[in-house]
This record gives sequence, C-alpha cells and structure tokens, in this order.
Amino acid sequence: MTKEPMFDVAQLAHFEIYSPKLEESVEFFKNILGMDEVGRRGNSVYMRAYEDHYHNTLIITENDEAGLGHIALRATSAQALERRVAEIEKTGYGIGWIEGDVGHGRAYQFTTPDGHKIELLWDVEYYEAPEDQKTPLLNRPQKRPNRGVPVRRLDHINLLASDTDKNVEFLKEVLGFNLRERIVADDDSSIAAWLSVSNLVHDIAIMGDALGESGRLHHICYWYGFPQHLSDVADLLIEAGYNIEAGPGKHGVTQAAFLYVMEPGGNRVELFGDPGYQIFDPSWRTVEWKGKDLEKSIIWHGSTLPQEFFQYGTPIKSGELVKP
Amino acid sequence: MTKEPMFDVAQLAHFEIYSPKLEESVEFFKNILGMDEVGRRGNSVYMRAYEDHYHNTLIITENDEAGLGHIALRATSAQALERRVAEIEKTGYGIGWIEGDVGHGRAYQFTTPDGHKIELLWDVEYYEAPEDQKTPLLNRPQKRPNRGVPVRRLDHINLLASDTDKNVEFLKEVLGFNLRERIVADDDSSIAAWLSVSNLVHDIAIMGDALGESGRLHHICYWYGFPQHLSDVADLLIEAGYNIEAGPGKHGVTQAAFLYVMEPGGNRVELFGDPGYQIFDPSWRTVEWKGKDLEKSIIWHGSTLPQEFFQYGTPIKSGELVKP
Amino acid sequence: MTKEPMFDVAQLAHFEIYSPKLEESVEFFKNILGMDEVGRRGNSVYMRAYEDHYHNTLIITENDEAGLGHIALRATSAQALERRVAEIEKTGYGIGWIEGDVGHGRAYQFTTPDGHKIELLWDVEYYEAPEDQKTPLLNRPQKRPNRGVPVRRLDHINLLASDTDKNVEFLKEVLGFNLRERIVADDDSSIAAWLSVSNLVHDIAIMGDALGESGRLHHICYWYGFPQHLSDVADLLIEAGYNIEAGPGKHGVTQAAFLYVMEPGGNRVELFGDPGYQIFDPSWRTVEWKGKDLEKSIIWHGSTLPQEFFQYGTPIKSGELVKP
Amino acid sequence: MTKEPMFDVAQLAHFEIYSPKLEESVEFFKNILGMDEVGRRGNSVYMRAYEDHYHNTLIITENDEAGLGHIALRATSAQALERRVAEIEKTGYGIGWIEGDVGHGRAYQFTTPDGHKIELLWDVEYYEAPEDQKTPLLNRPQKRPNRGVPVRRLDHINLLASDTDKNVEFLKEVLGFNLRERIVADDDSSIAAWLSVSNLVHDIAIMGDALGESGRLHHICYWYGFPQHLSDVADLLIEAGYNIEAGPGKHGVTQAAFLYVMEPGGNRVELFGDPGYQIFDPSWRTVEWKGKDLEKSIIWHGSTLPQEFFQYGTPIKSGELVKP
Repeated sequence: MTKEPMFDVAQLAHFEIYSPKLEESVEFFKNILGMDEVGRRGNSVYMRAYEDHYHNTLIITENDEAGLGHIALRATSAQALERRVAEIEKTGYGIGWIEGDVGHGRAYQFTTPDGHKIELLWDVEYYEAPEDQKTPLLNRPQKRPNRGVPVRRLDHINLLASDTDKNVEFLKEVLGFNLRERIVADDDSSIAAWLSVSNLVHDIAIMGDALGESGRLHHICYWYGFPQHLSDVADLLIEAGYNIEAGPGKHGVTQAAFLYVMEPGGNRVELFGDPGYQIFDPSWRTVEWKGKDLEKSIIWHGSTLPQEFFQYGTPIKSGELVKP
Repeated sequence: MTKEPMFDVAQLAHFEIYSPKLEESVEFFKNILGMDEVGRRGNSVYMRAYEDHYHNTLIITENDEAGLGHIALRATSAQALERRVAEIEKTGYGIGWIEGDVGHGRAYQFTTPDGHKIELLWDVEYYEAPEDQKTPLLNRPQKRPNRGVPVRRLDHINLLASDTDKNVEFLKEVLGFNLRERIVADDDSSIAAWLSVSNLVHDIAIMGDALGESGRLHHICYWYGFPQHLSDVADLLIEAGYNIEAGPGKHGVTQAAFLYVMEPGGNRVELFGDPGYQIFDPSWRTVEWKGKDLEKSIIWHGSTLPQEFFQYGTPIKSGELVKP
Repeated sequence: MTKEPMFDVAQLAHFEIYSPKLEESVEFFKNILGMDEVGRRGNSVYMRAYEDHYHNTLIITENDEAGLGHIALRATSAQALERRVAEIEKTGYGIGWIEGDVGHGRAYQFTTPDGHKIELLWDVEYYEAPEDQKTPLLNRPQKRPNRGVPVRRLDHINLLASDTDKNVEFLKEVLGFNLRERIVADDDSSIAAWLSVSNLVHDIAIMGDALGESGRLHHICYWYGFPQHLSDVADLLIEAGYNIEAGPGKHGVTQAAFLYVMEPGGNRVELFGDPGYQIFDPSWRTVEWKGKDLEKSIIWHGSTLPQEFFQYGTPIKSGELVKP
Repeated sequence: MTKEPMFDVAQLAHFEIYSPKLEESVEFFKNILGMDEVGRRGNSVYMRAYEDHYHNTLIITENDEAGLGHIALRATSAQALERRVAEIEKTGYGIGWIEGDVGHGRAYQFTTPDGHKIELLWDVEYYEAPEDQKTPLLNRPQKRPNRGVPVRRLDHINLLASDTDKNVEFLKEVLGFNLRERIVADDDSSIAAWLSVSNLVHDIAIMGDALGESGRLHHICYWYGFPQHLSDVADLLIEAGYNIEAGPGKHGVTQAAFLYVMEPGGNRVELFGDPGYQIFDPSWRTVEWKGKDLEKSIIWHGSTLPQEFFQYGTPIKSGELVKP
C-alpha cells in the first residue's frame, strides 16, 4: 500500500511584500483593487480583500527594494502545527517561533531551501466588519467595496528559485504539498511547478530563476472569480497609467483567466478572473508539459507574454531586461 | 486541544439516478448538457462531463420511478477506506462490499440514517480519450464537446431527509464532512445543511423533506464555471421545451449562480454557473441563516423559487404540489 | 411604392426626472451607478454617464413628487429640426421654443397626446473632460470612474399612457419612430409598444397605465453592455439597502439582460446589461406578442416581475399597490 | 446651414467570399460558428447565423483563390435605391443591374474605386424557420443552434485598398457612409478608416494594403454579443486545429472584444464578442488616432497582433509574410 497523504497544512493564509514606495503601493491595492487597509504597525500596512475571512492577507512593508517578506501557511490543527514544526526542525531550515503579528498568534518561521521565508501558524484572528459594513450575505465578511474593481480573496503566490526541484521536494515532503502541474526540461527536471494543499491547482508555484538568483518573488495573486472583472480592471489600470505586463488572457496551466501588472513598488501582481479547474482527486497524476505541448502551457489563448515575464522578479537584479 | 479533523473522504465521485424514461434522460444530458455516454451495462447508462477525470460521474438506470440510485464517495487513500468502513460498520448502516462497477473497483455500500445509499471506494479508472478527442490542454481529459452547452464537471448532490440533523451528524461524525452553512429553525434544528470534505461549500446538502418522506433526492448538480453559460443553456432548454424550474439567479448560500431544470425522467438537475465562494479555513465557523436573514439565504438576487421547489423530490410522492 | 421612411429624429438625448429627495437621488446615481454631477442650476442637478458624449443626459429636479420632467430628442440636422417643428405645430401639441438649457441650445417643446413633455433640439454641447480625466481610449469621453459599478450611457425611457396606440401613432407619424415590438390585446390594440429611431429596439417605450392616469413615467434606463455588471451592481444595491424590484433577468422583448430598482426619489430605474438584439432592417416587421406567447415577452428567463411592476409609475397615485 | 446627411443606405446585408476549399469552409462556419446552410446554387453555398433575419448573409463560392466575391448593401427604400443608382452611375464605377440571387431581388452592381464589387438592393427574402425551428422568442428568427459556439448575426466587413482615402470618400459621398474613426498618417492621410450607415462604429472598414494591391479582403466579421463566447469558441478552434491569429482581446477602435481566425479557404474571419460602443450622435466628430495614441488604437488590452495581420489579405499575394 502506498504511503498516506499528509493533511497538516490547510492553506496559504497571507503574504508580506516589500515596497520602496509604501504609500503608492497601498494606494494601488486600495483604489484599483478595492482592498481595505486594516492596520499599521512599524513600517508595515495590513490589508485585506472583501471576501478574505482573516484579519489580513497582505502586508506591505517599506523597504529599500521590492521583494518577498514572508509567506504564511495555516496548519489544519494545533496538533498538525506541532507535527510540522518537529519535521521542519529536522531539515535545518527552521528559524524559530515568533510571538505573533497583527491578526495572528504564535508562528514558526523557516525558509525554503532557496531562502524564501515562510511561517506556519494556527491561531488566527477573524475580521469583524464594523456595523455599517456588515452584509446580509452572511458568508461574506463585509460589504462589497464600491471603490475600484474589488478583488475577492487571496489566491496564490509564485516564487522564483535557483533550483526548482529542490524546493518542490521540500514543499512535498516536509509540508505535504501536492505537485499538480509542471513544465519539464529535456533532462526531466522541473522548469516550473504548481503545488497545492487545497483543491486549487496551486497555492504556491515555483519557477526557475533565469538569473540564477535565490529567494526572489515572481508574483502574488488575488482572485475575482469572473473574467469580466479582468477587462474592467484593465480599463482602470490603463487609464490610471499602470503598466499591464500581460493579459487579460487564459493560461493553459490552471486554465485560469489572468492579468499581470506591476504594483508601484515593483512587485508583479497577478489577478485571476475565474477559478480555472480544480482538483478533487486524491491520487492526482501530475500534468507534465514538454516538447510541442509547451506552447500552450502558459498561454492557452489571448495575450502573449513579454520576454521580461521570464526574467523579472523582485528584488530586481542587475541584468534584468526590463524595469517597470 | 480540540480533536483533529478527519481527512479520510476526499470527494464526491459519482452518482446514480433512476429514470422511467432512460433514453430521453440520456438524450437530455447528451444533447443539452453536452455530456458523453461512455458505457452501458444492464439497465444503466454511464456518462461523463468533459472535465470529469474519472471514467464516469453519472449513471442513469432505468426504473419505474425517478430518484436516487446511489452516491459514490472516494476515500483519500486505501487505508482511509478501510478505516471508514470499520467505523461505518459500527453504526449499523453498513450493507457490505461490492466487487466494483463500470469505472471503479471494490466499494463498500451503506446508507445514511435516512436510507440514501452511498458507496465508498478507492480504486478508480481514469477516462482515456480516444486519439481524436485528446486536447493540447493537458489538464483537460478530452476536447470540449461542440454539442449543447457542455457542463464541465460534477459538482454536488442535494438530498431530502426526514430528519436533517440526524443525517448531518452521520456525515460529520462517520465520514468527516464539515458543516459549512445551515438554515436554522426556531428550535435551532437544521432546516437545510450544506456539507463538504473539499474546498467547495458543499459536496452534499441535506434538506428537510416537506412531505416527511425518507431517502429522496432533491437534485444533482453539474458545473460550468462561467455565469454566461446559464443564460446560454436557458435558451437551449426553453427552445427545446424543457421546464426551467428557477434561474438563472444567484444563491445566498454558496454565492453560486444557479439554474434548476427537470430532466425528462423527473429528477431535478441544478447547473452551477460559477464557483461561488470557497472555503480554505480549517476552523470554518458554520454560517447560520435564520429570522430576517432567511430571505437572502436561497436567493441573493434574480430568480425566485416556486413553492414546488420546497416540496418536490424524487421519487415523486402523492401530495406533491406540482409534477413536471 | 410605399412612402419613404422619415429620418428627422436621431436619438434620445437626455431626460429630466423629478425627485422629492434631490440629494439622495444624486447620491444614488453618483455612488452606485458611478455617474458624475456636471452642473447645477436652480433646483436641478445635471449628470452624465462616462460614455455619454454630450454635456449631460440626466437632469434631476427637486419637486414635491417624483415623475417625468421632460424628454429631449435630437434631430438629425438643423433643417430636420425645423421640419419637425412645423409638423408638430400642426398637431396642436406644440408648446413653443425655449432658449436652451445647461448643455444645449434652443429647443422646441411639445407634449405627447398623453401629456409627456418632449423637447426637440439640434445644438448640443459636448462634454470635455478635464485633463486628469482624459483617457487614451479616444472614443471614450472620459476615464472609467472607479466608484460604484459605473453605467456607460443613457439607453431608453419607458412611459405610461392612458392610451398606448394614440401615443404610438404620434411618435410614428409626427416624429418618424418605428414600431419594433408590441404586446397585443384581444382587440388588437397595443398594451405595450417599443419604438425607435435608432438601431436599438427602443429609444422610447409606451405602456398602458393600469390606473388610467396620463403622462406618467414607468422608468428610465442606463446601459452597461456586459451582463456581469448587473450582478455586480445588485451586490452594491442590496448591501446599500436599495430595493431591487426585479432582476437580473432576461427580457423576451429586446432580449436584453435587465434589473429594475427604485431610486431614492421613487422613480424606477432600469439597468441594461447587454445590447439585446439590434435592428438594421429598414423594412422591419413589428414583432407581435399575444396569446400563449405573452408569457415569454417580458421575461425570457430568470427573475419574475412583481404585480407592482404593472401598476407603479411616477408620480405615484393613490390606488397603487405598492410604494417603495 | 450644413448639408443634410443622406439616409439612402440602411445596412450591410450580406457578403460573398471565395474559397478554394468550399466544403471545408462550409464545415467551419457550420460546425464551429454554428451557422446553417440554407441553399446551394452553382458553385455557391448560402449560409446564415441564427439571428440573421434575411434568407442568407454569407455566400461561399468555390474559386481558385480566396478573396472577396461581393458585398451587398440594402437601401432604406425602393426610392433610395433608385436615387443611389443614379448617383453611382455618374461616378463611372457602375456595372449594372442583376436580376437577383438566392434570397433577394434585383440589385445594382458597382465597385469601389479600388475594385471591390458591391451590390445595392431593396427586395429581400426573409428567412422562415421550419416548424421545428421556430422559437417562442419571437424576435429571433429561429432556435439557437446547439452546434459549435453559434454566432448571432453578421456584423461588418474590412477591406484592403491601395488608397484608403479615395475609397473612404466614395463611401461617404456616393453612399452616405459616416466616418467614425480613423488612423492618421503624418501627412494626415488615413491609414485605416471605420465607416457606418448604422449605429455601429463600422459596417465597412478600409485599411491601406501594405502590398499596394487593389480590391483585397482583410476580414469578414460575425457577432456574438457576449465576450465569454470568444473564450468558448477559442477552445473549439484550438482543439479542432484551427489557427487563431489573434485574440481574444479588446480593440481600442470600436472598443469591441475580438478574435481573428483563418477559415479553411484562407480568408480571415473576425468574431466580435460584445457590441463595443455605439454612435447615435448625428454630428459625430471622427475619432482620430495618431502619434503616441496609435498604440492603443487596435489593441486596448489583451492579445497582441502578429506582423502578418498588417499584410495578409485575400487573395493571397506573393510577398506575403505568412500563409495560413
């Protein structure tokens, strides 16, 4: 009998990005993507989308250069948290416990082999809307904002790594992620990989860093659920002078309708316009794209991707083709 | 510390409905919903949607009256299957093992307290498209049909029960379902309940049977992912003379865009036009609809529901308000 | 040879509604429908949608009771204006010239046989966006607002009349309107009629007033172009406490996706989510709905209409079933 | 006073394309675009979309090479037809009357200055659906097909010309077309021009032929009305092995959602997913794209255009960059 799957990690809970232009970044997420600022501490601003259930899902921290602060994963239980911490500690990638942050309690910090900081946590604070923001749609934590084209919830994060497979293995073995799709090189190594602990095709993607750097961020992603909203937000973005890198278009991997735009701090943001497909099969066979099929992997139809897409990440490194 | 959640059941794998008009039912699913017939055995026809990964998800079996044949759930592993069977046997609702059926291996049969037959299984057969039906969209098991307005995959099932809470408890305790939303009576009992083992709001819903009957079916549901398709299929349905019971409209519970129609055999079929919202939170607090909020629970906006919706189920019983 | 069609009237240019709650009405059109206030004079506020090309399309005037102020039609040329005025004067329904108003020059006022005030004009002022509102989408007069779910342009107006056919004849004979669709009573009189001078199915509709009153307004309509926006704005409306009378749903007549809501002043506002179908045929044969076909005329699918829809108009009269 | 506008031409009524692969072309329009074959005569097949009201709108004629057969315009009246013929005859571009064709009566043939054949007609035959194709949606001439992703109606045609302005002037002066938008070269000549007699932004577009050829076809266009259908049909096209040249994306000019694909005969076909914006203003000021604004004229967002788009037309000429 095969080994049983692990269910100790439930979801991507939030992420922190660095921005050299804090207020402009906040403005972008607030006025274009309709997100709310729910707190400030130190150099950090805490934000959420209107169907995010936790206190916050995006932290923007002022910093000299753009990039990833950290990723937070939520365990499926207090016991699962302890189990995972014990395993992480064995890998040598553990950092240690923190007391908590705005919106959550104690969390265990560690890194991927490539150096992306992750924290695993269980105790969370739920967002409670003020009276005038409560909605009769009881499964929605607050009213739909009437500002911008509001995103509904956090979706996923995509990381650049100097060695894709090494990081994929870490996520699989230590955290129980499932490898859903991958782009395969001639030597059968992974050029890119999409992994999830949920029914989404990915909560985390790992792509090879074309510059050979470690620990960089390719993009964060928020979710609409309706393709029309990508066209709507594209109007706002273009007319406000933001640079749409690609999209609206439709991915092959995930099948999702996408749009990529650089937020003012320089980090790439993806917006998902529909759910793509979802995976409920517990013995899912990884979808492998290679050879002649590669063409349809990233773009199924519509928009093409600029060369920059395959090089640019944050922090920005010398040698980048394009800077936003 | 609270008890850890159970992860032994992964998903709703398929369902069987009874039809007194077998060929007309098959025709409906084939020509309007764009599903494929993939096999026949005895009085049963096996069908699938084009993004269903298993061999089949719908079995239509000829029978004197409409209604539910059985529901199949897939375990998360071979071990999980054994564990659940051991627990089910203790409840007294077990029936026993069958050798398998078209598209899957051995399965353990049992019933809900209300008598709906369920089978739990692990071994499945994947659908393999013939060469001319293979698509470069590698995560899609076959080409999109160009017949009707094709549904993409199985979504959920909704059961009528003489006692909602008793069946909800069974699904929670014995199978590990999570109670996502419920409509609450004055005495705090559940009038209706939506439960899932996945990130969907429900894989199975249980609603009180207004006629006090046991073991009846309210509806089965297939999924589009795009609201436009509900308008498209409504055109086909109306012009082909089918009776749309309600919709397109938008639910409060699940937030999904819906349409209800009776298939020729008399069973109610729901079509979901979008993913609604999804639940990734491992400590989800059940959403409870009662009092003044009830109005928005079933219908958030758009179509209203006829009185029939709250009474009609299959098999049809005397005392029904409306017959299709 | 048949008589040649007349082309002297080009379009519906703007309308004026009365509101007993001026500022609340303005707030509704501004914050929910994303319209801009572009001027004030006396008790009137002038507003426009972001793809309206003229200075304004909606005038809201403070008044004891809700209702129609006037409708403005634009002639196809200065000569056409003179020709029509000469013909209107013969009918006895002429009132006379006014010097102009905010956004347009001299106009000739008259009434329908039922007493709805209309003005016909040629000289118009185009909207010129301030520098920070100019868009690179050169056929769009200003940027898309990022407030509410913004309507794109004025669409049509629907009038109640004590005698439908008499007013239809007036629009046809004196102004050159084409009768596109009608709902026919047993005696072949029109219960409702949709007329246009453009390729739209209607610029003006006339419906029989169930209370036998004269000169009342059924609704004004603005246009989105995408059905998704009806679902989006429904969220805003419900959560802001506005009363959606019906929809989103799809009409038989016009085929358009619709939603009806009462603005705070009491006037009914329709929102069109798509273009429906359009008429380019110069010898269009009026579509006639009667008998068994009637059921599908107003509602093709989705939402049903409350009884109120067939009685309520503004000004509100005693004997109304429902008041908002 | 300015000269009054002319209203003698009402609409684009049908077009004929040449195909070296007749049956494959018919198959494409039938099975992918859901059109119906309604007649055959000689080497020609007559087809229509399900919301086309006339007998046919597309004629495909077998021919050695692809290209334009002719365009048919419908006059606004029998008198208007005579008036236009008298004027056309004066230009020297007249050919003469034909007795009629499948679906229409006598027509006057002439050419544009560039040699594209046009016929102007008044007498048309309406499509009458067989009993089993009649729909209760009375403004729709037949049921929605359940084959492919069916287009709803003919939209426009785009012609290549050796001299854009000369042909624009002809359409304006002789036929009463209005110049809605144009792309302007440094010397103020038109690189491309969009003209209409209807409220559409264009019934006919003229673009400069990069190869300097005369009388070629750039594309014909059919209309959906809903952007989702472009994504749907893209699935069908890709999976059936057709070559999508560009799209889905959104145009600046017209604002319409578009997709371009080569039909098997080699002619480019555009599909419009929404109505874009429409023009009701009788004194419309031509929108002029030049300099820095050019970038947004063809593509507002989404898909980019390959170089081929600006060169390829039918008949295919040596010197073409790409052949389908």
